[in-house]
Amino acid sequence: MDYGKFFSADVPSFLRSPVREIFRKVDLSAICSFAGGYPAAETFPLAEIPSLAASVVAKYGSKALQYGATQGVPELREAIAARYGVPASQVLITTSSQQGIDVCSRVFLDPGDAVLADNPVYLGALQSFRAYRAEVVGLNDMEGTVVDQVQGTPKFIYVIPEFNNPTGKTLTLEERKAVVRKAREMDLLIVEDSPYREIRYEGSPVTSIRELAPERTLQLGSFSKIFAPGFRLGWIIGPEELLDQIYACKQCLDLCPPVFDQYLALEFLQSGALDRNLQKTIPLYRHRRDLMLSLLEKYMPEGVRWTHPEGGLFLWLTLPEAIDTVALYDKALAAGVAYVAGSFFYTDGSHRNTMRLNYTFVEESKMEPGIKLLATVLTKSLNHKRL
Amino acid sequence: MDYGKFFSADVPSFLRSPVREIFRKVDLSAICSFAGGYPAAETFPLAEIPSLAASVVAKYGSKALQYGATQGVPELREAIAARYGVPASQVLITTSSQQGIDVCSRVFLDPGDAVLADNPVYLGALQSFRAYRAEVVGLNDMEGTVVDQVQGTPKFIYVIPEFNNPTGKTLTLEERKAVVRKAREMDLLIVEDSPYREIRYEGSPVTSIRELAPERTLQLGSFSKIFAPGFRLGWIIGPEELLDQIYACKQCLDLCPPVFDQYLALEFLQSGALDRNLQKTIPLYRHRRDLMLSLLEKYMPEGVRWTHPEGGLFLWLTLPEAIDTVALYDKALAAGVAYVAGSFFYTDGSHRNTMRLNYTFVEESKMEPGIKLLATVLTKSLNHKRL
Repeated sequence: MDYGKFFSADVPSFLRSPVREIFRKVDLSAICSFAGGYPAAETFPLAEIPSLAASVVAKYGSKALQYGATQGVPELREAIAARYGVPASQVLITTSSQQGIDVCSRVFLDPGDAVLADNPVYLGALQSFRAYRAEVVGLNDMEGTVVDQVQGTPKFIYVIPEFNNPTGKTLTLEERKAVVRKAREMDLLIVEDSPYREIRYEGSPVTSIRELAPERTLQLGSFSKIFAPGFRLGWIIGPEELLDQIYACKQCLDLCPPVFDQYLALEFLQSGALDRNLQKTIPLYRHRRDLMLSLLEKYMPEGVRWTHPEGGLFLWLTLPEAIDTVALYDKALAAGVAYVAGSFFYTDGSHRNTMRLNYTFVEESKMEPGIKLLATVLTKSLNHKRL
Repeated sequence: MDYGKFFSADVPSFLRSPVREIFRKVDLSAICSFAGGYPAAETFPLAEIPSLAASVVAKYGSKALQYGATQGVPELREAIAARYGVPASQVLITTSSQQGIDVCSRVFLDPGDAVLADNPVYLGALQSFRAYRAEVVGLNDMEGTVVDQVQGTPKFIYVIPEFNNPTGKTLTLEERKAVVRKAREMDLLIVEDSPYREIRYEGSPVTSIRELAPERTLQLGSFSKIFAPGFRLGWIIGPEELLDQIYACKQCLDLCPPVFDQYLALEFLQSGALDRNLQKTIPLYRHRRDLMLSLLEKYMPEGVRWTHPEGGLFLWLTLPEAIDTVALYDKALAAGVAYVAGSFFYTDGSHRNTMRLNYTFVEESKMEPGIKLLATVLTKSLNHKRL
């Protein structure tokens, strides 16, 4: 049977995540993977889960297993509101912060509308914007007269201001103010994607974009890096009038976020376990970042540069122009090491001499052999090009 | 700030569920609610949850808290495949069966496309189709030449063949064959929504539409009525080529379904607890249906008719033409009883003399006072009209 005629006009715009495609085919435990955006399994409160579940059952009873409010259970909305200093009416729980991105896309984007975004940009966001057939314009291309290059109606700016995925970079206060200025000049909304904000190893927190421009910012949060991604829970903080339409959309998407998981997250948060866990996660990740930085220093061939993230999960390598990380990928995988080619994160597929490395997921004992393998693959390719 | 200009062209088509709006405003425990489509809390395996959680932690470890495959964890896909006699490659886990409906809408519907659906039709499906600006045509209006009335390109037929929401009716084998014939004639897909199939109290199971037309049917299943709706888990069984595009779409929606909840459901299923629980749920629901049927018999004024569901959660009242259940709703609520006006389920908002009653959620002790209250409200309205 030929199914082609049934598909909607959006379907040809669905990008498949190269990261998820890699994971479909490769047994992660058999290789050294710097590819996924995975938190370290050691940070999961695995041992505490049965007692958290028992507390939820004891405290909330059958309410925890029933359908819940579309906006999320009131207790969790209030707890998040209290943590971030906003009224609970400005908090909506989402079934993952990826859903937060998707629902913003659905509520704000028509085909041909434009998003001004980080460039390189988080792949899941790029997938979502493209799936609505929106134009994605690099925010860093937007200075001065380049604004003219936008074809469609720009609706919002999308940024990850802290420990960016994929680059690991953090926007300074001045840069954030420039984003807000741009949004106000062009009268745009801002989607501030903040899944890593609480995972800072050094330096001081910078004022969030939401705090600079609460009237036009939707700030996305996530439990994936401060609790566990196996519970698909995130939240949106933003103006009530915007959340109200997102609420209406979310009814169609899944009626409500997982109720039991929301109470688990609430219990984890309210018992203080979340903050205690963060106190263990942060030094672990700092250590892994430092380890990766020192290994890059030790093994990488000349001409390779990388970012020094102050938090989060990723760093970003820029290699000599001669290297094509897309073309090299199969060789690296065959050698036993995985990364994500940087060009996947660019709206135009450029920058084929870059790559994203994750340093949180891989076992520490595999990190040195992994970076060594990667350096060997890169060095060979460089030598080959020079011949 | 005026946000109107930011919204996409779909936003004005978002219907807000009157059911969910009721629940936003009313304390359910203070009234007798026949409105929600809620399972009985007594059927939830509440006491078993902590030990299920402990088993998941012991068996699957940190894998249960990490990101998972977009299609769902392989073990659960295999368990569902085995239960329903299909290959695991034809099973995709969804974050609720509402998401199943939404993702089918997204993958198949463009604005102006048509869905041929039950009429009255499940409200969450109507919301989703309308949110994509699709035309929704009553399937029961589709006999003979009335096909000409469809304006847009029909893409699929949507039906709940068992214990329909809202009517409680079940399609006979002949009626199912007629649906399949229609789909083949018009070359359409079929979305067979089957959340209640396993909740049958009497009569024999009827061959599913998927079994009659596997090449063109996407069958949606749900854990909400056989486990608990607080875990947002459903599945789609269908042709691999269709699931492959749904998979690509689902990456954008939420990356993957809740992993921990999937393992809980798997443990519940594989331990035999799910089937044991069903053996308790079915007689409980049969009893409540019988109780409601006898109370309707006892209290309803002349000229009121209702369905006799063989399973599921709902029955459907047809009242004398003079009664307007939308207009009466506030009076009923003030008297302490809630229902859903039947016209909300009609594509054209007609049939204002109908209503949906749920008999599974309300405490049994409240059922007689509730039906008595409802009968009084209806009788008063009838007498008033006759004056």
